[in-house]
Amino acid sequence: MPQKVRIALDAMGGDVGAAVVVPGAAISLKRHPKTEFVMVGKRDMIEEQLVRYPKLKEASRIIHTDVAVSMEDKPSQALRRGRKTSSMWLAIDAVKKGEADVAVSAGNTGALMAMARFNLRTLEGIDRPAIAGVWPTLRGDSVVLDLGATIGGDARHLVALAIMGSFMARVLLNIERPTVGLLNIGTEEIKGHEEIREAGEILRAMGELNYIGFVEGDGIGKGAADVIVTEGFSGNIALKAAEGTARQVSDFLRAALARSWRTKLGYVLAKEAFRELRDKLDPKKSNGGVLLGLRGVVVKSHGGADAEGFAYAVDVGYEMVKYDLLTKINQMLNRDGGGLVPNPPTPETVS
Amino acid sequence: MPQKVRIALDAMGGDVGAAVVVPGAAISLKRHPKTEFVMVGKRDMIEEQLVRYPKLKEASRIIHTDVAVSMEDKPSQALRRGRKTSSMWLAIDAVKKGEADVAVSAGNTGALMAMARFNLRTLEGIDRPAIAGVWPTLRGDSVVLDLGATIGGDARHLVALAIMGSFMARVLLNIERPTVGLLNIGTEEIKGHEEIREAGEILRAMGELNYIGFVEGDGIGKGAADVIVTEGFSGNIALKAAEGTARQVSDFLRAALARSWRTKLGYVLAKEAFRELRDKLDPKKSNGGVLLGLRGVVVKSHGGADAEGFAYAVDVGYEMVKYDLLTKINQMLNRDGGGLVPNPPTPETVS
Repeated sequence: MPQKVRIALDAMGGDVGAAVVVPGAAISLKRHPKTEFVMVGKRDMIEEQLVRYPKLKEASRIIHTDVAVSMEDKPSQALRRGRKTSSMWLAIDAVKKGEADVAVSAGNTGALMAMARFNLRTLEGIDRPAIAGVWPTLRGDSVVLDLGATIGGDARHLVALAIMGSFMARVLLNIERPTVGLLNIGTEEIKGHEEIREAGEILRAMGELNYIGFVEGDGIGKGAADVIVTEGFSGNIALKAAEGTARQVSDFLRAALARSWRTKLGYVLAKEAFRELRDKLDPKKSNGGVLLGLRGVVVKSHGGADAEGFAYAVDVGYEMVKYDLLTKINQMLNRDGGGLVPNPPTPETVS
Repeated sequence: MPQKVRIALDAMGGDVGAAVVVPGAAISLKRHPKTEFVMVGKRDMIEEQLVRYPKLKEASRIIHTDVAVSMEDKPSQALRRGRKTSSMWLAIDAVKKGEADVAVSAGNTGALMAMARFNLRTLEGIDRPAIAGVWPTLRGDSVVLDLGATIGGDARHLVALAIMGSFMARVLLNIERPTVGLLNIGTEEIKGHEEIREAGEILRAMGELNYIGFVEGDGIGKGAADVIVTEGFSGNIALKAAEGTARQVSDFLRAALARSWRTKLGYVLAKEAFRELRDKLDPKKSNGGVLLGLRGVVVKSHGGADAEGFAYAVDVGYEMVKYDLLTKINQMLNRDGGGLVPNPPTPETVS
């Protein structure tokens, strides 16, 4: 574990930029006073914020750039316009150069993925990166990956996700031997992608991870496993469908509660229950998608996060570095007879 | 439209069997008095129920069999044991023989799919069937398909789903020109299966359906389109993730409301609001997955449905027949220059 955790921040990323990033960093610094920050972006905008946080100012160094990736830029545009110059690129570059241990950005996901992959490259044994997130469940939190970085993937890719997700759950959720499930659609024989079944066999044979079998979509919210593994398309669909449903239920409930004086009064009396519910499902508290599989840790904050939300993303970066996640993943992936068996010839399964 | 709608019921299907199926049919008969039923299963068990419903008894004919597919049978087991003999098979067979217009079963999905496909065969132009369901949204109901019948599929398959789903939305939701969206994960260029993009281009070029573009996972609950099209794996993941989240939110809320006397009192006062919410999200009301793409209509009721829930599934079957869905789909799929353009050479996209 390094003495101090050094975090590079894309101070221009997100819907708001420095006015959220800097106060967010200040909140996280209070929780982890040993952090150092590299803030990348327009110097005057960053300094304007830093005057309000003398301790943070002391712990921060600014790398100035005028160039920012916009939330609308396509990945190729972002690379064309912002490579080597944008705040997003330079924050990632600080990790590459060893000047920071982790980069955090609330900028647009596609651009961040593209830049991180282009600049940091993937780990030995990993073809394509993943985004992992923390999902609140009925049993506590679970790590779910891939939430949308890479579409499709063979059994070997899924096994790599399982390894990376397990380490992340150990570090972030403090679970010694996190259970791992593969997302699938029922256990009937006609169902299930071949690669998922094959990944299940490999994980069972490995014995090293706490693999518990297939988990269906409704198992995520139940907390059926500490780590839920799937390729990026279905992972993103699951995440968004769940978010959509949570919003839908709360919209229905709000409308129903506003229907009569009785229900309104009931709402007032039960207010703390609704606050508790909101708190439980608060996306802020699970803010911070981790880009895994790269030669460096990059954390993606939600673009619309406020300072509190951004602070959670910074916290996630801090934990990942403090417990040296990357080295651990790398060791397991690449040791002799390691986690990744050579790719067996796979029959084509998706037609 | 046929004079009377003739519905074949697998009276042994589901967790309960005849004691749910028969009362369910009775409820549906009240709503649609012109229905005739063919009830397939153990004669004594069916008759025992029918004595309580003289009108239904009059409208029903029994096909006796002792064989029932169990909820645990794998599709291959079900076919081996129950082909030509089980209540599930014989209900489907009544459709094939023209003795019924639609079959409804609460039996196990895999077995029902396998038997329906084996016995009825797919429509000209359709390689593989789909399950379509009605999804309650913030804007009303949407048709979502495929909910898990067929994993993967090329652009042509997705276009066929769009055609079938559109007709189903017209019939069940009474929408003249239902909007159609393809489920996808964001609009950034690096994202999206090739086949989904290609399907989008075909649908746009066809002009006939009201195609509105890609919809993300959270768009389903928002009601972003009347018909949401995706292959069966992601469709099933979306459905289950949404169900899991709805359950999770209500479990959280129940726990929070039981925390203090204030919240408990609030709950009592706002009870009607909670009832309204439950009603909105009631899975009974969207019970009835329709197997589409076969030479005959088969409706799958939830195995755990009660009589009211089963009645909804019977209603769905009734509507499908009354508006002659199958003929309409068939005509559009197979007319000259019809909905399904010949399959263009597709690059391999899922690796």
